[in-house]
This record gives sequence, structure tokens and C-alpha cells, in this order.
Amino acid sequence: MRWIKFSAEGRTAYGILEGDEVREVAGSPFAGYERSRHAHRLADVKIEVPVIPPTFYCVGLNYADHIRKGAARTGQTPVLPEQPDVGYRANSALIAQGETVIIPRDATELVQYEGELVVVIGKKARDLSRAEALSCVLGYTIGNDVSERTWQKSDRTLWRAKNSDTFKPMGPWIETDVDLDAMQTRVSVNGTETTRFKTNDMIFGIETFISTMTRYLTLQPGDMIWMGTDGTSPNLKSGDVVDIEITGIGTLSNPFRAAGPT
Amino acid sequence: MRWIKFSAEGRTAYGILEGDEVREVAGSPFAGYERSRHAHRLADVKIEVPVIPPTFYCVGLNYADHIRKGAARTGQTPVLPEQPDVGYRANSALIAQGETVIIPRDATELVQYEGELVVVIGKKARDLSRAEALSCVLGYTIGNDVSERTWQKSDRTLWRAKNSDTFKPMGPWIETDVDLDAMQTRVSVNGTETTRFKTNDMIFGIETFISTMTRYLTLQPGDMIWMGTDGTSPNLKSGDVVDIEITGIGTLSNPFRAAGPT
Repeated sequence: MRWIKFSAEGRTAYGILEGDEVREVAGSPFAGYERSRHAHRLADVKIEVPVIPPTFYCVGLNYADHIRKGAARTGQTPVLPEQPDVGYRANSALIAQGETVIIPRDATELVQYEGELVVVIGKKARDLSRAEALSCVLGYTIGNDVSERTWQKSDRTLWRAKNSDTFKPMGPWIETDVDLDAMQTRVSVNGTETTRFKTNDMIFGIETFISTMTRYLTLQPGDMIWMGTDGTSPNLKSGDVVDIEITGIGTLSNPFRAAGPT
Repeated sequence: MRWIKFSAEGRTAYGILEGDEVREVAGSPFAGYERSRHAHRLADVKIEVPVIPPTFYCVGLNYADHIRKGAARTGQTPVLPEQPDVGYRANSALIAQGETVIIPRDATELVQYEGELVVVIGKKARDLSRAEALSCVLGYTIGNDVSERTWQKSDRTLWRAKNSDTFKPMGPWIETDVDLDAMQTRVSVNGTETTRFKTNDMIFGIETFISTMTRYLTLQPGDMIWMGTDGTSPNLKSGDVVDIEITGIGTLSNPFRAAGPT
């Protein structure tokens, strides 16, 4: 089942995507819903960010190859994480399918993508075992953890390196039925594939993160966890279009554009 | 003017606090409001978290004495920040005036308070100069950035050290009219003062943070920035009550209690 958030005919609503038809609902997948009489063609709606989370969790380092190549880039020894420590991103940076990533005026050329699986929480959860962990998950979508590597290295936090306005494209929709082990993440720039990896080849898996996190905190409906990325990205420039495809979900596509003069 | 969020008679609303009377409004200070016919005695309402922010910003290191004493505690050389890099906290950890901070079962004895001034954003803001910065501020409240120092040192992020459930008391209300330079922050444990500092004696002030942040991101109504703390805290134990008073705002008071057995 695919949940889509969209705007059409002057209102914003959740819908269920069936083929090319969006069946509008009253309510939401998080708080209960009823199918309405309204249906739209997918091509006729504006796709919105699938959910604005109460808390936006993000796993920084979770794939071995990404860590090794990142360390090589900065001449450091790669250090794999020893425990599943989650981090945060900012809601202020979220944009939807098709919307434009604006490269800040003073960014260096080291603007890069990170294609990520996003876990969307559907139910309040606390103290879940690994075996119970996936029971709180509504479904999965795709995120692009856009990063300016110069600021990532120079700043004490990731606030502008990863959370400048428009740096967090997410979508296009939430897929509830997936086969995690069969997933591949494929990223392409202007139609040419530049990165491919097995999506579930994580150092710490989704069950481990959820069970560890919920020992200390309560996950809420609508919270989401971005699961990190593998491999590396070329530097992106104004005019590039980045497509991130994950098997069984779909493709998140966003153009990049340099900010205009002030 | 004091904005209070409260529950009474089965509903939650914003109100304007005048002396001991809460004048209920329809709407909010962020999206417009009208005074209603309902008034309550302050003693009769349950005080709620003043606002759940779209994005929860927090300045980690912003007072010199706190940095020097923190470094001394871990035997390191103090490093003062060279630029105003903001960080994040989790909405999931917020609790209100009077609510109980639960010390996790496996926390060490190094559970400490941090009394902080909280800046509450009232209007959408982007590209503000330092001179314009305060124009987007609605008012100020008080936060307790509760911290488990062992996890703060051992983990790659602050997720459980500072964002375990109940680790972010905030309130009691939002004061719109303050004299920043006249403010003192006074923290007491069980009625005995343990920390006192000049609230506005920051390394980077509020105007600098807002003008720097809004070069890269859009602040939204309801966003908040916790401004950091000075000095040090004793270790807190089950049964302690921590009061944080900031001149002109009021006192945030919360008891601490050890988690029960599973």
C-alpha cells in the first residue's frame, strides 16, 4: 500500500496511490482515516513531503564502504561505529518530490547527495525488543541527505552542512509493503547511474536501531529515521538532477540550482 | 506580556497570564488570536509545554566558564567555539513545568542540570541582519538541558545523553518583555542555590545566532533556540527538585525520580 500526501483543488490531504490514481482519504495513516469519494490522477496532483515528523532522526554512519571512502577523502583512518547512536536533522530543510535543492551562495563545490532509506514510524513505541521493533513501522520512503562537505568538516555541528534550507528532499510516497533484503538503492545524476548499493547492507539494522532507541525514548507516530548511505557522490552543480531509486518504493527526483545573487 | 499554554476543563489552549489569572484565547501567539470569555485561576490549570517547535535548536557551548569547567572535569584543554554553530535537541524529550524528570535505569550518577534561556521565534525569518534579528522573536522562556555526562562522553551523538524521555523540561511560560542585560540565571537544588550567572554573558549573543542561522535556513513560528548554560551542576539523584529562575521570566521547577524496575 502506498500513502501519498498531495495538494489538489486547493486542499492538502493524504491519499492511497493505486496505479496512477490517488484515492483521497479523510484523516491520515497516523491517526486513522476513511476513504473519501474524491480520486485524482497522479499527474494532476502536487506531491507534498510525506510527513513532517515530531522528531527527525537520522543515522549518520551506517555503511562500511561510505565510512572508508569518506575517511580516505580527508586522509583519516576509517572508524566504524561501535554502537547505534542516532542523530538528528531539521524539519526546516525538508522539500518534496520534484522541488529544487538550492545550493547556497557561499557553498564550495563539494555539494553531494546521500541516497537513504527512510523508516516512517506509525505507532507510539517504547521498550521494543528487536523482534518487536518493526511492529511500530508504518512504511518506508526515500531521502536525499544533501551535504556540503567543507562545512561538514569545518563546523562543530551539521547545521548548515546538512540542514540548509532545501537540503532534505524526501518522498515521493510511503510504501508499507517492502522486502528489505531485496532492495537496492540506485542513484543517478542527469540519468547516468553514479552509485548503487544493497539498501539493507547496514552496520546496524532497523530492528537494532529501534530497539536501542526505544530503551531511552518514545517514538511517536510520524517520526522518521533516515538510515544512512553507502558509497560516494560526485560533486553536484547547478542544473543537475539527482534521482534516487529504491526497489519497491519508487524514485525521488530533485533538480539542483545555485542560489541567485542577493 | 506572558503567554501560557495550559489545560483546564478538558481542553488545552493558550492564555495570557495577568497576575494569577489566565485569560484564555482562541488561536495562538504564532497564528493570531482573540481573547475569549474564559478566565482561570493559575492555580487551577495544568501548565503545558509552551510550544512544540517545528525545529528544536540548541546552542551547545556558549559560556566560557562552562567550557573551562567541563574541560577540567575530563582533563582536556578548553576550546572556545570560533563560530556560532547551532545544534539540535529532540521534541520527544520535552516536559512541562512541574513534570518529573525520570533518570533512566542504567544512567550513571553523573546526571546534571543545565539552566538555559530559551528564545521563542514568533515570525518566519530569513536573511536577517544582526540589527533586525530580534524582530522575529516572540519572547523568552526557560529550559533545563538535563544531561547524563557519561553518555555525553561515550556516545557519538547526544541522543540519550541529552534526549532521553523527560530530559528537556521547559517553561513555565513565554515572557515577551525582558531586559536581557539585567537577567540573572539562578539554579537551586532542593531550595539551595548551586549556580548563578549573568544570562546574557554569552560568547555569541542571540542576534549573532539568528543572523548567522538565517543566512542558511528559514526560522518558523514556534521554533526555539536554547542558548546554552554557564557554570556547573552537582550530580542529581532521585527525589531532588531543580528550580531554574531567570530574572523577569519566572521559575521552572521539576522533580527528578529514578526509573522503577522493568
